[in-house]
Amino acid sequence: MFKATIDAELFKDAVDVVSVLVDESIFSTDEEVIISKAVEPANAAMVILEMKKDAFDIYESDSHDLGIDLKRLSTVLDMAQRGDMVELELEDHKLKIVMGGLRYHLSLLDPSTIRKIPKVPQIQLPAKVVVDGSTIQRAIKAASTVGSYVALGVEDESFYIETEGDTDKLRFVLGKDELIDLQGDDVRSLFSLDYLRSITKSRAFGRGIVTLEIGIDYPIKISFSFADDKIKALYIVAPRVEAV
Amino acid sequence: MFKATIDAELFKDAVDVVSVLVDESIFSTDEEVIISKAVEPANAAMVILEMKKDAFDIYESDSHDLGIDLKRLSTVLDMAQRGDMVELELEDHKLKIVMGGLRYHLSLLDPSTIRKIPKVPQIQLPAKVVVDGSTIQRAIKAASTVGSYVALGVEDESFYIETEGDTDKLRFVLGKDELIDLQGDDVRSLFSLDYLRSITKSRAFGRGIVTLEIGIDYPIKISFSFADDKIKALYIVAPRVEAV
Amino acid sequence: MFKATIDAELFKDAVDVVSVLVDESIFSTDEEVIISKAVEPANAAMVILEMKKDAFDIYESDSHDLGIDLKRLSTVLDMAQRGDMVELELEDHKLKIVMGGLRYHLSLLDPSTIRKIPKVPQIQLPAKVVVDGSTIQRAIKAASTVGSYVALGVEDESFYIETEGDTDKLRFVLGKDELIDLQGDDVRSLFSLDYLRSITKSRAFGRGIVTLEIGIDYPIKISFSFADDKIKALYIVAPRVEAV
Repeated sequence: MFKATIDAELFKDAVDVVSVLVDESIFSTDEEVIISKAVEPANAAMVILEMKKDAFDIYESDSHDLGIDLKRLSTVLDMAQRGDMVELELEDHKLKIVMGGLRYHLSLLDPSTIRKIPKVPQIQLPAKVVVDGSTIQRAIKAASTVGSYVALGVEDESFYIETEGDTDKLRFVLGKDELIDLQGDDVRSLFSLDYLRSITKSRAFGRGIVTLEIGIDYPIKISFSFADDKIKALYIVAPRVEAV
Repeated sequence: MFKATIDAELFKDAVDVVSVLVDESIFSTDEEVIISKAVEPANAAMVILEMKKDAFDIYESDSHDLGIDLKRLSTVLDMAQRGDMVELELEDHKLKIVMGGLRYHLSLLDPSTIRKIPKVPQIQLPAKVVVDGSTIQRAIKAASTVGSYVALGVEDESFYIETEGDTDKLRFVLGKDELIDLQGDDVRSLFSLDYLRSITKSRAFGRGIVTLEIGIDYPIKISFSFADDKIKALYIVAPRVEAV
Repeated sequence: MFKATIDAELFKDAVDVVSVLVDESIFSTDEEVIISKAVEPANAAMVILEMKKDAFDIYESDSHDLGIDLKRLSTVLDMAQRGDMVELELEDHKLKIVMGGLRYHLSLLDPSTIRKIPKVPQIQLPAKVVVDGSTIQRAIKAASTVGSYVALGVEDESFYIETEGDTDKLRFVLGKDELIDLQGDDVRSLFSLDYLRSITKSRAFGRGIVTLEIGIDYPIKISFSFADDKIKALYIVAPRVEAV
């Protein structure tokens, strides 16, 4: 049994946390929480979405693995009007979605056909930057007009995003007073802009307070939460090793 | 002689009633009214536009059959600015269109080259639904993300729009209190979404109160009026027979 | 040495004066002014941009010829947020661009690789029309839905823009009271809509008061200024000879 009611726009934001990175994902439900973990095809970026029971107005669930076609689900949620609630229910192996007068039966994917999630790496990272999501969104968008890779780092009490194209170079620096928090050591890691572009583009990312945990040539952890911390998003992106 | 003055935006809305379905149409004028009847190439959907003399600020006309390239006329009317009046005049076998400082001479098409209009069928339909055009617009748009055909029907004192894709199913239900009026028997007919998508997309449709007359596996009549009933639009769409 | 600070949006508007016509241009700086002259590949349209020292908050410069990739510069300036100032500085043969926390090093092009500017013709034209840029913008946009060439002229104390397509004809007339100024003789010259479409599309053009100087089958001069006349734009477009 799975039966839940939630603000449609909020649910759309939660689904988008995953859909910016992959097309299909398993939503694992139990009595307390829905968790979706997914990894993009090249295994270089991973997402973990956690929606607590409290994020929902109504929530009752046994343990289920729901295989979701995220594009199709997004299309349905796009039909919502501002303020609509969405009712979700597992019915005859389909996800019944009810919003206003609209009733949609979404076929579920066989979970065994969806890419397996590797174990989430337990990593401790030496630097932490807390900043408005919209600032990161803007910087990554700017960087992607210049190059294919971007370095994120901390030095001189500042956080920077840096990219080099064939001829031009862009550096975006935020001092301590332009950040919400900055802790830890000097670090620098290089990432593919493709993944960062995808991760930063969602509406919830742009509206949120984002925590970046960075190391030296090490994976980055990018996290934010919304709906009073009842919905949490975590991305882990593998680094590129810089050519010497 | 044909000479008429009308609010440019209103005239654009009237022209769009026809242009959503066909590219060319005959506008038949006489002393009292302009009527344009047109049928789309597959003969499955028909439109009848009626503009009464009173819809115009100035209107003087003999009987004429004006062959109109609707795309070209729409492009001209798109040049209007809010509040512009448009003056229309038949001059040297062209339609002279004057708006503000702009003067456009639109070539007329030879009416004999435009697809013939079949006789408008006289049909009585057992159910009638009256509803906001914007609600139908939204439901048809949603349906077209799922399938190619859509069933419109009445059952249990409710009006429904239903469509099935390869795997998913969408049903949009409006109860009596969400409708302006609902009369008659239980009915259900299936239509190609292409035609309904075209018909419902115009601005005037979305702003209007729409009457749907529905039968059992029978054509549908879709009508609305605007400019205080001085401009009337009627569509008749042939049904698809449902596969058993 | 070249070092200048200016409102980012204003600088974007100035760059666009040139970029609507060509992709690369030389910005020649000296102690008092930046001038950029460029001609489009077919030699039929030319632009001269002049930015006085006073348009800048800070301006210090020796004589330099800076070869600018205008598309790349526009992309950088698009990263500005409303109210941002942009600092420009010549550094290691690159143009350093600083806006907020963003620092961009723009490679300069070798001026010898950029199309040579022919001598600017000294021409006196018999008629002068002064009019809102937005009106010309709208008329040229309308004309380009009809034909490929457009005649600009003066007759009967009015300014007109006229174009003919295969079947239709559009004429846009502005009387003396709809113009800011109208002086001189009756004139008429024909131009390619491509150039006029490009020239009129910039934001600064649409916001400005534009002076058109017109002759009989002769080049047209189109000029406007902004930032309290501290930035000046002049276009000269060669005429097409009308088929008799």
